Amino acid sequence: MDHEAGSSKLYEQVADRLAALIDSDALRAGERVPSVRSMSIQQRVSVSTVLQAYQVLEDRGLIETRPQSGHYVRVRPAEPPREPEIPKIPQAATLVSVSDLIARVRRASADPHLVPLGAGVVSTDLLPVKRLNRMMADGARRAEAAGVRYGDPCGYRDLRRQIARRSLEWGSVVGPDEIVITAGAREAIQLCLMAVAKPGDTIAIESPSFYATLQLIESLKMKAVEIPVCSRNGPSVEAIEQAIRRFDVRALILTPNFNNPLGSLMPEASKRKLIKLLAKEEVPLIEDDIYGDLYFGETRPLPAKAFDKKGMVMLCSSFSKTLAPGYRVGWAIPGKFLEQVLALKFIQSGPTSTLPQLAIAEFLDGGGYDRHLRSLRRLLAGQVERISAAVADHFPAGTRLSRPAGGFLLWVELPGRASALELHALAQLRGISISPGPIFSAKQRFQNAIRLNCGSVWSETIERAIKTLGGLAKELAGEPAAAAG
Amino acid sequence: MDHEAGSSKLYEQVADRLAALIDSDALRAGERVPSVRSMSIQQRVSVSTVLQAYQVLEDRGLIETRPQSGHYVRVRPAEPPREPEIPKIPQAATLVSVSDLIARVRRASADPHLVPLGAGVVSTDLLPVKRLNRMMADGARRAEAAGVRYGDPCGYRDLRRQIARRSLEWGSVVGPDEIVITAGAREAIQLCLMAVAKPGDTIAIESPSFYATLQLIESLKMKAVEIPVCSRNGPSVEAIEQAIRRFDVRALILTPNFNNPLGSLMPEASKRKLIKLLAKEEVPLIEDDIYGDLYFGETRPLPAKAFDKKGMVMLCSSFSKTLAPGYRVGWAIPGKFLEQVLALKFIQSGPTSTLPQLAIAEFLDGGGYDRHLRSLRRLLAGQVERISAAVADHFPAGTRLSRPAGGFLLWVELPGRASALELHALAQLRGISISPGPIFSAKQRFQNAIRLNCGSVWSETIERAIKTLGGLAKELAGEPAAAAG
Repeated sequence: MDHEAGSSKLYEQVADRLAALIDSDALRAGERVPSVRSMSIQQRVSVSTVLQAYQVLEDRGLIETRPQSGHYVRVRPAEPPREPEIPKIPQAATLVSVSDLIARVRRASADPHLVPLGAGVVSTDLLPVKRLNRMMADGARRAEAAGVRYGDPCGYRDLRRQIARRSLEWGSVVGPDEIVITAGAREAIQLCLMAVAKPGDTIAIESPSFYATLQLIESLKMKAVEIPVCSRNGPSVEAIEQAIRRFDVRALILTPNFNNPLGSLMPEASKRKLIKLLAKEEVPLIEDDIYGDLYFGETRPLPAKAFDKKGMVMLCSSFSKTLAPGYRVGWAIPGKFLEQVLALKFIQSGPTSTLPQLAIAEFLDGGGYDRHLRSLRRLLAGQVERISAAVADHFPAGTRLSRPAGGFLLWVELPGRASALELHALAQLRGISISPGPIFSAKQRFQNAIRLNCGSVWSETIERAIKTLGGLAKELAGEPAAAAG
Repeated sequence: MDHEAGSSKLYEQVADRLAALIDSDALRAGERVPSVRSMSIQQRVSVSTVLQAYQVLEDRGLIETRPQSGHYVRVRPAEPPREPEIPKIPQAATLVSVSDLIARVRRASADPHLVPLGAGVVSTDLLPVKRLNRMMADGARRAEAAGVRYGDPCGYRDLRRQIARRSLEWGSVVGPDEIVITAGAREAIQLCLMAVAKPGDTIAIESPSFYATLQLIESLKMKAVEIPVCSRNGPSVEAIEQAIRRFDVRALILTPNFNNPLGSLMPEASKRKLIKLLAKEEVPLIEDDIYGDLYFGETRPLPAKAFDKKGMVMLCSSFSKTLAPGYRVGWAIPGKFLEQVLALKFIQSGPTSTLPQLAIAEFLDGGGYDRHLRSLRRLLAGQVERISAAVADHFPAGTRLSRPAGGFLLWVELPGRASALELHALAQLRGISISPGPIFSAKQRFQNAIRLNCGSVWSETIERAIKTLGGLAKELAGEPAAAAG
């Protein structure tokens, strides 16, 4: 390589580069190292320099030569297993911003070694994994070039047709061409927000509300006004009206069907009233309906979009909570803001990956999605009930608990001054992830609340985890922990 | 359905909803309409209301009853084929903003009926379609739950390992944990830009530069300073230095390896000088290296990132120009801004779709990617040469032509006052898409230039299209069109 004059010799530099790759796990024990010739071309050095570099690496015990075959990363003698990495305990006192806290919570939630009560995730045990992957495999084979070339910027048309058909059930008939497929509901919400508001604008959101939405507003340099949410009926239209009157609200982001984290459900009458208000005030609503299909009642609650006649509601949803989180397929129905959303989609990420859309379209077309949803709803309602019962049994007296009307999340308010951040830290040390309340508020309210994920299959592990959490909560609340530990 | 008092009867409303779905193509001729019972539950109306609604639809000739089987969308008598839809001719005079123009050009570029000289796309005829889709099919089957659950927020680790190994060739060794997988390079650039700049900030870009980058800056309410690009050597470091001195530049977005649309290549000495300047001024560089592997010379040109010791360069790239545009797999190597980019990725779209990443990782692991790249480079260089020769033959005297050092794009400057926007409009009427010059500039410069895509396999159709374009260009330039029509 054409190097700047430096202190180390050329072959040492080449050796260091390879050593760095081995060190970083990009090249693993037993894997072949680039041939001397290709390395010489790639690094623009002579063959003898590469040979010298490889000699250095051999001397350091990093690679070995196999006759007639080349150089390989050496299998090093088994090291003693590493000591467990003690997680750093987050200290409420050292918090710099919500984002730091959220990043830490997010990392803990993603740790597969922890009991997963943190992230809001439906376990793949409850999802039609085999059938979906078969659709993907068949789709990839049949699609040929259509799977590989750039897809339609609006999204795969057959999937948009399937979603349009399902719109009957939401009481809000839309055509395939009113739908934009996105990388999950998260991208849908981001695009809709950017389509109707700009930096400095004020956005009204629920309190508590999903932390990624808070961060989204922060990252776009917008301001948030928090509307309090009743754990049964969602936000009141009066409070929304007040917010609009007092502040120059440019858009709302709401989850009328099963707020995350509360599971509250806005009554239909409130939705009508809300839409009337928004039409009058000309404020667009970004409606997160990602939990809408996971109702525990008799019929699917209608989204507010069902009452929207002016195209002011931008409905956002996805298949991430009902079918395939990892496929990353969501959608926006942006009403009168369709063109703006489409343009932003093109600018920011281009068309959504084709084959996952194709697999889901096939799945919906093949029937059985409604049956799957029925059984999923039953299972999740059962989970929520079981975990609620366990919390009632094991948590300190005075603990309050949401009664979600759908979804799979539980909101637990600890009594007295028990700190959710402390509980989060202690739980992590005991191998359990939870979501602490303050991440659900721009103002770090809810210091004594936690959110529990009920999307996993009930098991002894979960039961023990709830018991452990209850014991810790009792300690934090100053109640003797009894025999729970 | 629980309806507001309206003028139309309940069954008519239900009928209208279904008619709308049929009209919008969500329900097609021969497809089954929801059963009376499920429609009654879904729409919250009585069975007899649904029966009345279906009677209305039968009377309108939209659906038909099949005994023992239910209701189906009626196959309507064949209509005479529709008349061709005459594209609206864009008028330079009616332009409102670059975005409108770009949206129009983008739609024309996506029209499969036009000869594809507009969008910058490598034809799937040149890509390993079968092998990729086989990897996807095998991967989906083997991945089981791992394909369906949320993936690693940084991206699939085996893919990051493969990219890390390839970093040897860029002269810039990075480990798997320094890489963030994104939905194409476009998302990578967006995340990097948001990580280092905020609304109101000034960003230095090349002129001409890729129009989606211009739109990105516009959509984030940032300002652009245009740095002129030499069609051989890219932007001069002196011009960049001047821009930094004169304006408060917060970040640069450059494509040192094969600027889109020019195909220019910044010499290595300039890259070194640039990095030194940026380190001194503490200005981060977002380096778009999406064309870096498509060099026509002997060795791969190093990205500027190769000379970066302070982590100020954020390298962005993807597999969209070399392997699988529709898989939407790109990456960012954000240097010291890694944490910010990761947080934004989580907030804005969550982890990237798992299975397309897995398929590409398998493809890279299986070997043969370098061989594919070698043959792709040869083919693209040949294409560029052929189209250059055809332009030389058929375009008016005085036409200027770029000589790209890599990639698959050609920049053509028409002589005199020939207008690229007029040529774009006329070409579209003749069934040919091209990209007009003004979309490559925030100030709508390049009124007399066009970009031609050379990513398709050479054919008589393309030859004829170039001839037609040349004829049109001659007319616009005031030169007699000879026998070329």
